[in-house]
Amino acid sequence: MKKLGVAIVGATGAIGQQFIRFVSKNPQFNIECLTASDNSVGKKYSDSAQWYAEFGGEGMPEVVKDIVITKTSVQEIKKTGNIDIIFSALPTEESKILEPQFAKEGMIVVTKSSAFRLDEYVPLLIPEVNPEHLEIIEHQKKAKNWEGAIVADPNCTTTGFALTLKPIYDSFGIKNIFVVTMQATSGAGYRNLSPVAINDNLLPFIKGEEEKTEKETLKVLGKYESAKVAPANITISASCNRVNVDYGHMEDVFLETQKPCEPEDVKKIMKDFVGLPQKLKLPSAPKHPIHVREEEDRPQPKLDVNTENGMSVVVGRVRKCDIFKNGIKYTLLVHNTVRGGAGMAVLNAELLVSQGYA
Amino acid sequence: MKKLGVAIVGATGAIGQQFIRFVSKNPQFNIECLTASDNSVGKKYSDSAQWYAEFGGEGMPEVVKDIVITKTSVQEIKKTGNIDIIFSALPTEESKILEPQFAKEGMIVVTKSSAFRLDEYVPLLIPEVNPEHLEIIEHQKKAKNWEGAIVADPNCTTTGFALTLKPIYDSFGIKNIFVVTMQATSGAGYRNLSPVAINDNLLPFIKGEEEKTEKETLKVLGKYESAKVAPANITISASCNRVNVDYGHMEDVFLETQKPCEPEDVKKIMKDFVGLPQKLKLPSAPKHPIHVREEEDRPQPKLDVNTENGMSVVVGRVRKCDIFKNGIKYTLLVHNTVRGGAGMAVLNAELLVSQGYA
Amino acid sequence: MKKLGVAIVGATGAIGQQFIRFVSKNPQFNIECLTASDNSVGKKYSDSAQWYAEFGGEGMPEVVKDIVITKTSVQEIKKTGNIDIIFSALPTEESKILEPQFAKEGMIVVTKSSAFRLDEYVPLLIPEVNPEHLEIIEHQKKAKNWEGAIVADPNCTTTGFALTLKPIYDSFGIKNIFVVTMQATSGAGYRNLSPVAINDNLLPFIKGEEEKTEKETLKVLGKYESAKVAPANITISASCNRVNVDYGHMEDVFLETQKPCEPEDVKKIMKDFVGLPQKLKLPSAPKHPIHVREEEDRPQPKLDVNTENGMSVVVGRVRKCDIFKNGIKYTLLVHNTVRGGAGMAVLNAELLVSQGYA
Amino acid sequence: MKKLGVAIVGATGAIGQQFIRFVSKNPQFNIECLTASDNSVGKKYSDSAQWYAEFGGEGMPEVVKDIVITKTSVQEIKKTGNIDIIFSALPTEESKILEPQFAKEGMIVVTKSSAFRLDEYVPLLIPEVNPEHLEIIEHQKKAKNWEGAIVADPNCTTTGFALTLKPIYDSFGIKNIFVVTMQATSGAGYRNLSPVAINDNLLPFIKGEEEKTEKETLKVLGKYESAKVAPANITISASCNRVNVDYGHMEDVFLETQKPCEPEDVKKIMKDFVGLPQKLKLPSAPKHPIHVREEEDRPQPKLDVNTENGMSVVVGRVRKCDIFKNGIKYTLLVHNTVRGGAGMAVLNAELLVSQGYA
Repeated sequence: MKKLGVAIVGATGAIGQQFIRFVSKNPQFNIECLTASDNSVGKKYSDSAQWYAEFGGEGMPEVVKDIVITKTSVQEIKKTGNIDIIFSALPTEESKILEPQFAKEGMIVVTKSSAFRLDEYVPLLIPEVNPEHLEIIEHQKKAKNWEGAIVADPNCTTTGFALTLKPIYDSFGIKNIFVVTMQATSGAGYRNLSPVAINDNLLPFIKGEEEKTEKETLKVLGKYESAKVAPANITISASCNRVNVDYGHMEDVFLETQKPCEPEDVKKIMKDFVGLPQKLKLPSAPKHPIHVREEEDRPQPKLDVNTENGMSVVVGRVRKCDIFKNGIKYTLLVHNTVRGGAGMAVLNAELLVSQGYA
Repeated sequence: MKKLGVAIVGATGAIGQQFIRFVSKNPQFNIECLTASDNSVGKKYSDSAQWYAEFGGEGMPEVVKDIVITKTSVQEIKKTGNIDIIFSALPTEESKILEPQFAKEGMIVVTKSSAFRLDEYVPLLIPEVNPEHLEIIEHQKKAKNWEGAIVADPNCTTTGFALTLKPIYDSFGIKNIFVVTMQATSGAGYRNLSPVAINDNLLPFIKGEEEKTEKETLKVLGKYESAKVAPANITISASCNRVNVDYGHMEDVFLETQKPCEPEDVKKIMKDFVGLPQKLKLPSAPKHPIHVREEEDRPQPKLDVNTENGMSVVVGRVRKCDIFKNGIKYTLLVHNTVRGGAGMAVLNAELLVSQGYA
Repeated sequence: MKKLGVAIVGATGAIGQQFIRFVSKNPQFNIECLTASDNSVGKKYSDSAQWYAEFGGEGMPEVVKDIVITKTSVQEIKKTGNIDIIFSALPTEESKILEPQFAKEGMIVVTKSSAFRLDEYVPLLIPEVNPEHLEIIEHQKKAKNWEGAIVADPNCTTTGFALTLKPIYDSFGIKNIFVVTMQATSGAGYRNLSPVAINDNLLPFIKGEEEKTEKETLKVLGKYESAKVAPANITISASCNRVNVDYGHMEDVFLETQKPCEPEDVKKIMKDFVGLPQKLKLPSAPKHPIHVREEEDRPQPKLDVNTENGMSVVVGRVRKCDIFKNGIKYTLLVHNTVRGGAGMAVLNAELLVSQGYA
Repeated sequence: MKKLGVAIVGATGAIGQQFIRFVSKNPQFNIECLTASDNSVGKKYSDSAQWYAEFGGEGMPEVVKDIVITKTSVQEIKKTGNIDIIFSALPTEESKILEPQFAKEGMIVVTKSSAFRLDEYVPLLIPEVNPEHLEIIEHQKKAKNWEGAIVADPNCTTTGFALTLKPIYDSFGIKNIFVVTMQATSGAGYRNLSPVAINDNLLPFIKGEEEKTEKETLKVLGKYESAKVAPANITISASCNRVNVDYGHMEDVFLETQKPCEPEDVKKIMKDFVGLPQKLKLPSAPKHPIHVREEEDRPQPKLDVNTENGMSVVVGRVRKCDIFKNGIKYTLLVHNTVRGGAGMAVLNAELLVSQGYA
C-alpha cells in the first residue's frame, strides 16, 4: 500500500482535532504537517493545542504530539515534505483564498469549509451517495487550471439527511420534503455557545443552516451529466434547532415520493443500501451506512450515536404520513462530528485514493 | 362577586399541585376540598404532599396547608361543603369512573384527563378558540342525564398549537399542517422519566401524543352546529419529541392555507388576535393570547416561557414555506403546565362562571 | 473451572439489571434464576423488564432473555436448580427478611442492601481493602446457625473513598477526614428523582448518605481480631450532594495523617497499590485499583469514569492541606454503579469463590 | 437626592452588562458613559452589544440603548460629562493600567477586577462585613497621590463565604475552615466554557479560585488598625469545583470556632445579622443579608438563588462537625453574578455615597 503524505490545516481547532483523530487511525495516511494560526507556529502540537477531542474518549494521538506547527501557507506546507492530501478545517474566508492555492500546487484538498460547496466544478461528496460526481474533477482541473483539486464535504445536517434519502430517491422518486432538525451543541464550534445559553433551553435558529440543508442536499442527489451536476428536482423546506445534546443531530423527515411506497419498503431498501465504499471495503466505511431500528423510541443520540463508530446513520419510526398521497415520515440520527465531519472526510479521501485521484 | 366552592381531586400529584397554585390565586374560588389516594386521606395537605410546584418559585399556598385530605368519592367530597366546581387531575382510568359521578351530582368538572376529550357531548375547550362549543353542555346534560357537566382541557401540545392556528384558520383557511414538537420534561409527569434517560439526550417518541395532537386539534377548531361539533377539515401530520428542557413545549409548524397569505399578514392577525376571555377581561386571561417575536432566534423556552405569566403562546420565525402554493412556517412556544395545564383549566372555569354554567 | 449457579433477586430494578450485565460476562457464573415482584412472576425476563442498563451502551444479554421470572422466595429459587450464589438487589426491608433465609439454606448472599452492613458478623467487603474480614464468615455461620452466609457491599460513596484511604492508612495512619461528595443521579435509583428537580440544580442532601459514609468506612478499614472487626480509629465528617451527572461520584477529601507525608508519597503509594484480587488475577479485577492523574483538572466524570471498565478509582489534585500539621487533600472519582455497585459485587463473589467460600 | 454621574467601563462583556442591569435600576445613578473595545467605539450600545443578561429575565434597559460607546480612556470618559463613579468590568491587565488613571483624575472606581484586591491601600469591601475598611481610602489617596480612589469587590466565592463567617467570627472566633465549592457556569465568563465540556460533567478545578478564596477572605475579615488591615488569623483550606448550574455558587463549609457554640446559636446569629447597609437602608441592601433554611435539602440554586433579588446568602444544614472540639458545618448559596457580582458593586457604591466618599 502506497503511503500518502497528509497535511491538516487549521489543526488546533475543534474540526482540526477531529481530523487528527480520524486520519491518525488510518495506516494509509502519514500526517506530515499541521498548520495553525501565527501564535502557534513553531511550537510542538502538544504544547499549542488544548485537546478537546478527548470527549470522544481518547487523548491526543502520539503521532502528532511532536509535530512542530507550520504556518498555513503553500510555501511552508511544501517544505514539510511530500503532501498528497490536505484536510482543511479553515474558516470560510481563509478557505476561499488558500484552498485554491493548494489545489494549484497539485494537492487534493478535502475540505469541511462551505466556501466551495456550491461551486459548479467542485464535487460535494458523500461516498455512498454520489461517487460519480468525482468526474467533475477533470473539468475542475481544466477550468481552474489546477494540478490538484478541491473536494467538499457537505455540512453535517445534509450528510445524514442525504444518505437516508438516496435509496428512497433511487427506488421511488421524491417530490417534497419537510425536515426539522434538533442539532447537537458540538456542531456550534467549541467556544461559540455558552452553557448558560443552552442549558435548560433550545434555540430555534442556526444561522445559514436551513439554506445549506436545502441547497446542498439537491446538489448531492443531483445527476451528473455532460460535465455538470443538475440539482435534484425536489422541494425541501427545513427548520433547524439547537438542542442541549453533545453529539448527534436528530432530524424528523416527512416526504412525498413519486411512486407509491409502504414503510416496510422504505425500511427494506434502507437496510439493504450499500454504496461504493462498502463494495470497495474502504477502511472507514461502515458495513451498513443506514441502520433501521424497529423500537418505537429509537434512535436516541445517547444510545445510538456511535453505531458503527459513528459512521452509520440510524433511522427509526418509519411510518406513513397521511398528508401526502405517497407519504412517509421517519426520524434519523447522524453523528455530526464523525459521519457529518472528520470521519466522512477521511472516507472521502479513501475513495479519492481508491479511484486514483490522489 | 359570588364565591364558588372548589374541590381539587388528585391534589397531591404534579397536576393537582399546579391546580392548587392557580386556583388559590383566584379570589372567585374557595378551595373547600382536596382529595388524594387512600394513604393520604385524613392527613393535613402539608403533611402528605411533597410540594413539587415550588419549581415555579413559590411554596405551598397557605390556604391549603391545613386542609385535611378527603377520599376521592362523591359522598366524601359532598360532605366537605358546597362544591360548585371540580378540578380533576385524576388518572385516565379513574376519571372515566368518577367524573361522571361528579357531573351527575350537579358539579361542573374541569378535567385535564384525556378520558372524555373526544366524547361527542364534551366540549374540548380553549376559551379564546371555541367558547361557542360550550353550547354542547345542554345536550350533554340531556343525553347523560346529568345535573352538572364535564368540560375537558386539550392536551398541552394541542393547546399552544390550536391557539396559533385559530386566527389563520379564520382568515385564510388551512388545508394541511406538519408539526414537529420538542416537549419539556415536566410534561412527562414528575417521576415518570429518569434524569439519566433524558440528560444529554432527546427522545423521538411520546406515547399517544401524535394521535392526540392530530385529533384534538381538529375538534377544537371544529364547527358547532345542530348540537354537534364537526371536526375541522384539515389534515395534520405530527412528530413528537421529548427534549431536556424543564418547562415550555416548542413546536415547528408548516402549513398550507386555503387563501394566499404573506408572513406579514399572519403576524398581524396573530398579534391582533383576542377572544372572549380578553373581551370579558377574565382574571386569568392574558392581554394577548399570542405574542409574536421578530428576532431571528426567538422564542426560546428559557427566555420566553413566562410571557404574560405563562398564559400567552409565543410565536417566532414566521416565514414562507415554498413547498406549498400558500405555505407558511413558524415556531411556537407554549408553557405546558400553565397555558397547557392548570392555568388554562382555571381560565376555562372562569369562562364557565361568566357564561352562567357554574 | 467449576461453574457456579447464580440467582439474581430483584432482577428487574436498576441494580438488578446491573447485576445481570456484570454476572453475564463472567464465564464462571451461570445465571439460573431471576426473581422479581409478583406482577412479573411467570413472564419471560425480556417481556417484563424495561432494560435501563442500555445506558451503559449494551442491550439486554441474550442469556437472560428467556429466563422465566421466579417469585422471590427460598422455595421457588431452589426449584430452579443448584444455586450457589445469590446476588441481592432487594429493598432494605425485604433484605432483612429474605437474605437470612437464603443463607440458612446454604447459599452465599452477596448483597447491595444496607440491611446487614453494620452487623458485627457480616463482612463489609472491598476485595482490595479488607479480604481478611472474610474470616468473620465462620463466626457468622456459627452465631446465626446458617450453612451459607451473607457478605455485604458498602455503599457506592464508601467504596471509592475507602479504596483511596487504604494505602494511606497503612503507610501513614489517618486521624481525621473531611469529605464532600458530588454524587451522580444514577445513584438515586432510576425513577426516584425528577429531571425537573436536578436539571440546572444541585441538591445539598442525600438521605442517610453521610452516616453511611462515616460508619461504613470505619468498618471497612477496621482491624479483624478475635472474631471481630474493631472500627478504625478515625474521625470522619461528611457532606453529601447530588449533582447533575449521570455516572461517577466525585469526592473532595481533606485528611490528617499520623505520620508526616508529602503529596508525592501519597501519589506513589496510590499508584503502586494492589490487593488480593490483583495478586489472584481475578477476572473482574482492574490492573490498578487506583489511577492517579497529574493534570490540574482531572478526574472528571465524563472523561474518566470508565477507567479500567469502571473498576478503578481515579484520583487527582493530590496536594498539601495546610490546616493540618500532616495534611493532604485530593479529589477522587468512583463509578457508582460499577466499582460502587454491580461490578464490585461480582468481584466480591469472585474472591469468595477463590477463597473457597462458594 | 444628589444624582451621580456613572461610567461603566468594559460595558459590553458579561460583567459590564450585569453592571448596566443593576446601576440602571438605581435612581441615584445616571449612566453617562459606556466604554468598550475599539471595534465598538462610536456605535450605539444597542447595536454593539449582544445582550446576554436577558437570562435574568430582562431585556436591555432603555436608558443605555442610545448611548454611543466611548473608548476606554480617561480623556474620552471625561468628555462625556461629570463622572463621579466608575464601575469597572475591565480584564485584569487593563485594570492595572487604567484604574489608577481614573482614580488620579478624581473618580471613585468600584472594580470587579482582581488587580488591586490584595493591595494594602485598597479596601476589599463587603458592606455588611467590613465598612470600617473604607478608612484606608484616606491613606490610599495620600500614598498614591490620587484625588479619587479604588475600592475592590471580592471574588464571587469569597463574598458569600465571608458574609456567613462574619457573625460567627464576631461571636465565637474562628480557627480553621475547610470549604468545598460547587460553582455555577455563569462565573466562567460567557464564552470561556463549552457546553460539551460541562454537560453531564463537573470540573474539579478553577484556575486561581482556591488561592483567591483563601486570601481574600482573610483580608475581608481582617482588623483595620493604624492605617492597615491585619489579615484575620484563620487557616482556610479550599477545594473549588465547577458544576453544571447556571447561577448560584454552593459552598460546603466545615469550621472550628474559638469558643464553644451550638448549631442553634449559629443559626440565630446568622438570622439576626445586619450590617451598616441595613441600618442605613441603602436601596440595594437586602433586609436580611443571610437567610437560614431549616429544611434538610435546602438551599438549592434553582429554588433559592433569587432570595431578596439575589442579594441574600442562603444557608442551610447547619449542624455539628465532630472532628473539631468546637465544630460546625453548613452549606451556603450565593448568587454569583448578583451578590457576588454587579449587585454588590452597586451596594458598595451606595455605601461610598452614603459615607461621603463619592
